[in-house]
Amino acid sequence: MYVNIAFIGYGTVAQGFTEILLEKESMLKKEHDLQVKVVAVSDIKKSSVYDADGLNMREILSLVQNGKSLEDYPKGIKGKNSLETITQTNADTIIEVTYTDVKTGKPALTHIKTALDAGKHVLSTNKGPAVKQAAELLETARQNNVYYGFEGTVLAGTPALNLARNTLAGNNIMGFKGILNGTTNYILTRMEEGMSYQEALKKAQKLGYAEADPTGDVEGLDAAGKVVILTNVVLKKKLDWSDVRREGITGITPDDIQKAKNQHMRWKLIGQAEIQKDGSVRASVSPEKVPLSDPLAGVNEAINALTFITDELGPVTIVGPGAGRRETGFALLIDLIQMKDYRKQKDLKETGHLKTKN
Amino acid sequence: MYVNIAFIGYGTVAQGFTEILLEKESMLKKEHDLQVKVVAVSDIKKSSVYDADGLNMREILSLVQNGKSLEDYPKGIKGKNSLETITQTNADTIIEVTYTDVKTGKPALTHIKTALDAGKHVLSTNKGPAVKQAAELLETARQNNVYYGFEGTVLAGTPALNLARNTLAGNNIMGFKGILNGTTNYILTRMEEGMSYQEALKKAQKLGYAEADPTGDVEGLDAAGKVVILTNVVLKKKLDWSDVRREGITGITPDDIQKAKNQHMRWKLIGQAEIQKDGSVRASVSPEKVPLSDPLAGVNEAINALTFITDELGPVTIVGPGAGRRETGFALLIDLIQMKDYRKQKDLKETGHLKTKN
Repeated sequence: MYVNIAFIGYGTVAQGFTEILLEKESMLKKEHDLQVKVVAVSDIKKSSVYDADGLNMREILSLVQNGKSLEDYPKGIKGKNSLETITQTNADTIIEVTYTDVKTGKPALTHIKTALDAGKHVLSTNKGPAVKQAAELLETARQNNVYYGFEGTVLAGTPALNLARNTLAGNNIMGFKGILNGTTNYILTRMEEGMSYQEALKKAQKLGYAEADPTGDVEGLDAAGKVVILTNVVLKKKLDWSDVRREGITGITPDDIQKAKNQHMRWKLIGQAEIQKDGSVRASVSPEKVPLSDPLAGVNEAINALTFITDELGPVTIVGPGAGRRETGFALLIDLIQMKDYRKQKDLKETGHLKTKN
Repeated sequence: MYVNIAFIGYGTVAQGFTEILLEKESMLKKEHDLQVKVVAVSDIKKSSVYDADGLNMREILSLVQNGKSLEDYPKGIKGKNSLETITQTNADTIIEVTYTDVKTGKPALTHIKTALDAGKHVLSTNKGPAVKQAAELLETARQNNVYYGFEGTVLAGTPALNLARNTLAGNNIMGFKGILNGTTNYILTRMEEGMSYQEALKKAQKLGYAEADPTGDVEGLDAAGKVVILTNVVLKKKLDWSDVRREGITGITPDDIQKAKNQHMRWKLIGQAEIQKDGSVRASVSPEKVPLSDPLAGVNEAINALTFITDELGPVTIVGPGAGRRETGFALLIDLIQMKDYRKQKDLKETGHLKTKN
């Protein structure tokens, strides 16, 4: 299958994904029947370039990584803005990875809606739109017969949505519970070793795990966003940001840590949701003392983990990275392969040639 | 898609799978386009019955669970042996779950080969054939354009093969490391709490985790078989049982346990394999002291875990049950859904109606 890609936003995740596409080109063709051409790149700071025959992505990477503008690319059409790139190019698949306000979801939300309405598939690692409107966007995609993939919004490239929807298919998933934020897990790991909260936060900032304003991580906002996405998509229950009871890790003291140790327990920032008997959902993000016998207790450093509560298998847990340039870029590859399967199934339905035996 | 099933062997796993099929009938139709009819059941002790129009499986379950023979089923053709059931019925899919010698793989190996050669799909939880000949059987299936699924041979219904082959697709998997045997993990968990090896073994036997002759588990044979399957299928490297360096847990003393505790470590029976720089594979099953910071250290009781070493994501770990009647039955449902996808893809190729854009 041939795929024509346009990047909307060309920051670190987009660049990581580009490297993966270049390095894995022959594997993708051989094992997944995927031949990918990048026809456009549009970035608010780096300008934009479009070539219907495909761009030389090694050259694009080199330009961008040397701080140059996309205007310096020797061929192609320059100056298309993001919406023009979405609607006025021969891209069939939009990779939406702009720098976006996670609260309003803009500008990514506008990009994604525009693309879906234009009949283009969308793969995005942007949390904002998925938190605000995952269900609505999936419905818009369905109506337009296109694919909307957002695996990277939960645990970066560690398969969370794909695990629940495909690998655990056949199970009824009644809830989930996880370590959904790497920064806070890193801070708690250092506090276990004796650091104060402030020391641990400083170290996390130095390593680039935490931002200058760490509120989004340490107050549990980031984890709450993931709880919202998982609840809407995996539990298939409507949940808004404001429905999540939320408490961060800023109140945890060395004394709390020590007391938990004495009880063979360990503090973790746990994001969770569970379908109640009356069909409603109870969702929260809060620090919890987890017994050392729980698989989540063994997940330390910036690593993430997610346990799905299933009817057939009981708890099933996946543990892996939850952030990183290549790791998040890889989530787009998961979505790309899923999109291919979706398109093949769609073609199959349209041609009506599915043989059935009875 | 309509699927006609014949059970070869009708013990606890087959019965667990039957219950799942009955309970999830409408979900399987609605969400997975699967309409399953069981047309034959053949069991060396319980006799056999065949009805081309489909058997009433609630009635079959009730007969068997009341210790009656399948001869007592009021309709259908009686007396077909396993090979006749495979080749002389309208079943398109054979569920091979006989009681089989894990060393020789018989009689399951004969059943599976016969079915594949007859152009029938095979779903099996039997370890023996997969350990001895996974690669050859997959090749036979390929040549006959049929599907051979054996998810349940590794971690029961916890997706191990499916995770590696589908969910982690796009990654290069260079090795794996895991707790692949629940019985030994249960024994080690009890020893951590202060029991001797003999006490813990007795308790495991009482709970049905360990057999009267526990050799297969405690000497690491069961785990070694899983290492062989994973190496052949996931790492795609030829490996025989005898290539696995193997050491069981019988030599671990309370003193060893205590020493590890003092070092913040925990003994686990680890099965692992890794592709070496020269392309060869180093594979082993042996007790290892795992640091408490390792996700595998937090996996206790009879729970299993498997870490894949990937190029894009680093280590990715799945934790879940590795045994059980329903849990292993569920592995057959994973295979059934995978088989459906395979058959749809095959139909697509044959009709040649895959649209591609450029």
